[in-house]
Amino acid sequence: MPVAATAPRFGVNYTPSVDWMFQWMALDPDVVRADFDAIARLGFDHVRVFPLWPVLQPNRTLIRQRAVEDVATVVELGHAAGLQVYVDVIQGHMSGFDFVPAWLVNWHRGNMFTDPGAIEAQARLATVLHDRLIGLPGFAGLTLGNETNQFVDDPNPDKMVATPEQVTAWLDAVIGPLAASSKSTIVHSTNDHAWYRNGHPFVPRHVTGHGTVSTVHSWIFNGTADRYGGLSSESVRHGEYLIELARAFADDVRRPIWLQEIGAPDRCLTNDEAPEFAVQSIEAALSTADLYGVTWWCSHDIGADLSDFKTLEYSLGLLRTDQTVKPIGRRIAEVIADARARPREVPARPTAVQIEVDDALVPLDRPSLGPGGAHFEAWHTLRADGVPAALVTSTDAQDPARLAERGIASVVTT
Amino acid sequence: MPVAATAPRFGVNYTPSVDWMFQWMALDPDVVRADFDAIARLGFDHVRVFPLWPVLQPNRTLIRQRAVEDVATVVELGHAAGLQVYVDVIQGHMSGFDFVPAWLVNWHRGNMFTDPGAIEAQARLATVLHDRLIGLPGFAGLTLGNETNQFVDDPNPDKMVATPEQVTAWLDAVIGPLAASSKSTIVHSTNDHAWYRNGHPFVPRHVTGHGTVSTVHSWIFNGTADRYGGLSSESVRHGEYLIELARAFADDVRRPIWLQEIGAPDRCLTNDEAPEFAVQSIEAALSTADLYGVTWWCSHDIGADLSDFKTLEYSLGLLRTDQTVKPIGRRIAEVIADARARPREVPARPTAVQIEVDDALVPLDRPSLGPGGAHFEAWHTLRADGVPAALVTSTDAQDPARLAERGIASVVTT
Repeated sequence: MPVAATAPRFGVNYTPSVDWMFQWMALDPDVVRADFDAIARLGFDHVRVFPLWPVLQPNRTLIRQRAVEDVATVVELGHAAGLQVYVDVIQGHMSGFDFVPAWLVNWHRGNMFTDPGAIEAQARLATVLHDRLIGLPGFAGLTLGNETNQFVDDPNPDKMVATPEQVTAWLDAVIGPLAASSKSTIVHSTNDHAWYRNGHPFVPRHVTGHGTVSTVHSWIFNGTADRYGGLSSESVRHGEYLIELARAFADDVRRPIWLQEIGAPDRCLTNDEAPEFAVQSIEAALSTADLYGVTWWCSHDIGADLSDFKTLEYSLGLLRTDQTVKPIGRRIAEVIADARARPREVPARPTAVQIEVDDALVPLDRPSLGPGGAHFEAWHTLRADGVPAALVTSTDAQDPARLAERGIASVVTT
Repeated sequence: MPVAATAPRFGVNYTPSVDWMFQWMALDPDVVRADFDAIARLGFDHVRVFPLWPVLQPNRTLIRQRAVEDVATVVELGHAAGLQVYVDVIQGHMSGFDFVPAWLVNWHRGNMFTDPGAIEAQARLATVLHDRLIGLPGFAGLTLGNETNQFVDDPNPDKMVATPEQVTAWLDAVIGPLAASSKSTIVHSTNDHAWYRNGHPFVPRHVTGHGTVSTVHSWIFNGTADRYGGLSSESVRHGEYLIELARAFADDVRRPIWLQEIGAPDRCLTNDEAPEFAVQSIEAALSTADLYGVTWWCSHDIGADLSDFKTLEYSLGLLRTDQTVKPIGRRIAEVIADARARPREVPARPTAVQIEVDDALVPLDRPSLGPGGAHFEAWHTLRADGVPAALVTSTDAQDPARLAERGIASVVTT
């Protein structure tokens, strides 16, 4: 039976219109103000922002107060524009560039996940930033960092290896205390390697068992668009699918899930297709329960004066650097207005595709969950046939109480 | 016959008292003003400053105007304090930390010496900075960067390999035009690997044939202090020896030579010995001709709040972070005042130790020039015996006109 739900948060990942993330090196409030006003005019209620780690903490024991104050200024500017602000704290990876402080690279090569001094430093930074911001009305929460899991494994050329247990300890140390005590939202984030790659040290339970909300990042350049097409059901429901995956691995069946990144890469979609992809993707996400928010990637295009990004990165914005709105931005604004105007109906998902997991709840074959994989295709085939399917672990599938709690009546094995 | 000479420039390498080089991320003029006043009070006439490369040029095609303006502000503050300011432009290495922009590392690993785009970017940065500063009365010159040669070879864990010919092309491209046209001093700098390590792609002719002045950096932690003692003749004359080495490899016998770095590391010298080392080292340098300047490393100690430097790095300052003067600072101030007060007599150096070189003027055995090496010891033995010796290449030693030009009457082979 469908359940009525209010509209989730709608926001954008904030890519400053001037100097991209290098804006954080010495903030120009006028730039941020103009950007936030343009974002707010589209109807968004929040931004996720990315102060660079080396700017905040260039030495292991130096947190630059001026950089912290710049973040506070951005939160205040967000509030003034009517936006809630989510802050990424360990902002070490962004759009194909890594920003790791000098104290962890080259002569000082270390491991952010396992070196006690590095862990302590990150925990201190997270706490200092949180404590500075928590009193500001514009502050909504803190993300540990953008897809920090990409640092732990191939293909990162300078990977800092860690076991799943070490990742757990790192998450516990850096955001555990905040997640337990803060009145704000405390999360971390991963790319889909946590879901789709065997042996990857970040596992689904890291997504669903740390912080106060599960986050997923949906990118169809991961093979989905290549295999099925940019406007295929698989592509436009990739975000929805990740949300349902995250639900399957959470202890709390009502744990909120945040589609924290989703975007329309021009490698996968033409300019004409991008708005349609956005509409259908957001509508798909709106068919999920306990949806914390949808945060589009990204606010502004990257200026052509900046070099060495992959081509697709330049044009992911909803706004151009001159603040004019792109067609995809206009369409998303309409979708948001519409979602807020009408009661949202979330379909029940009594049919669930079973995922075989080990005793630690790690999927036995993670590629089977990804594009081309058996579980991926089983779920998407049901969905395309009009069945809003769920997913369920093999552990939960043997637990009638758990199935009842989740409202699952039928388990499909592959 | 001794020659009268005026006192050379005396200065310090500027290590900000607050936040060390991270001061450059967002300049606090009050900090710099107080530091420069304290430096000027000791009698110095110049500073060498080190804006970090990633702060100036975080993207290959982005030179941050605000960072450039911060450098201009520092030059103006120097002038106000009575100091000339030399600016390092590609400031990628400092005190055991590398500061390489994200566009040259990790996913974007490249080669600053050989990638055409990287060379062009560095040339543009050098030109932009030079052109912004050249009109300021406090601006004295530009150093390409601090010991950039350490990036090209072992032991740098992320070395960017290049041949000597590629190093030549890089120097030509990045500072060649400026050296040919600027009214300011245009130099680059190397550590002593250019002199002492076989196979190192930076060779003596790179020091003596590019830019308008030869620079040498004298550090007795290179084995000299360990082998001979921190106050040995070899140690206190190590700077003088490098100056004479640089002279031997210059086309122009009157090309000025800048002892651009020399310091008293606590690994090699006790606190009581450091002032004496400074006095004797500076007096030894003053016994050389065409001495452009002596620039002590460094102005201020590194604050104990900063982590992960080698122990010796913390205490190299002449001033503490609270602006109080250390004993070595007081002694150097006296030496400077004395050098300016009395006419300086530079001894003739008619006796020269011959260095065997190949057709490209590369020493056949560079370790023989370093501590423990035959040429090193031959020169130092003469010097300790009261003979202010020179050095001469085997090519020049066969050229009577050249020997006459240099005033060399006796060539010693080893």
